[in-house]
Amino acid sequence: MLDNFFANMPPANTDAEQFITLLAEPGLRVERIVSTGQSSPPGFWYEQAEAEWILLLQGDAGLRFEDESTARHLIPGTFLDIAPGRRHRVEWTASDQSTIWLAIHRTPSTG
Amino acid sequence: MLDNFFANMPPANTDAEQFITLLAEPGLRVERIVSTGQSSPPGFWYEQAEAEWILLLQGDAGLRFEDESTARHLIPGTFLDIAPGRRHRVEWTASDQSTIWLAIHRTPSTG
Repeated sequence: MLDNFFANMPPANTDAEQFITLLAEPGLRVERIVSTGQSSPPGFWYEQAEAEWILLLQGDAGLRFEDESTARHLIPGTFLDIAPGRRHRVEWTASDQSTIWLAIHRTPSTG
Repeated sequence: MLDNFFANMPPANTDAEQFITLLAEPGLRVERIVSTGQSSPPGFWYEQAEAEWILLLQGDAGLRFEDESTARHLIPGTFLDIAPGRRHRVEWTASDQSTIWLAIHRTPSTG
């Protein structure tokens, strides 16, 4: 378990993004994501059943929604909510530093 | 509405803490809190029905739980979850800079 949000950062040359769950309970999951230059594969779109609120805290990224013509440029402090089913992809993340995201995933209640 | 998490910071000499809701939906509220040297009044304890996950992102603070003998020193990156009903108080926040918190409040479902 992480003892500080900014601890245990992956090395700069790490191949895969790193995902660490910080809080998990029914319907809710808070996650730290660290990207080191990754992007979504060509033609790939995320399409999630969960709503996902994201806050970019370090680095930068290009986030493209399928229903928008160009990628949004996310910088430190950018936050936005991705509605369930809204198709999106990460066009790029910073190559010269780690990009750190906080993500809050909410699963629709099935009660 | 805030368009960046680090925007619209209150002036350093602001009397009261600033609270801005970033996301609100049934059972969940995400909030930015900015402290400018405030602390809880002497003898005051927070005792909340909601669970509150907090992440300190800038500045520092002393957070005291009633069931612990000394305050915890929170620095950038410190995160912790405050269980419903667990009495706590803010002993101090940084006086030389703003202290920025992200708080995730979860209300027990009443469904």
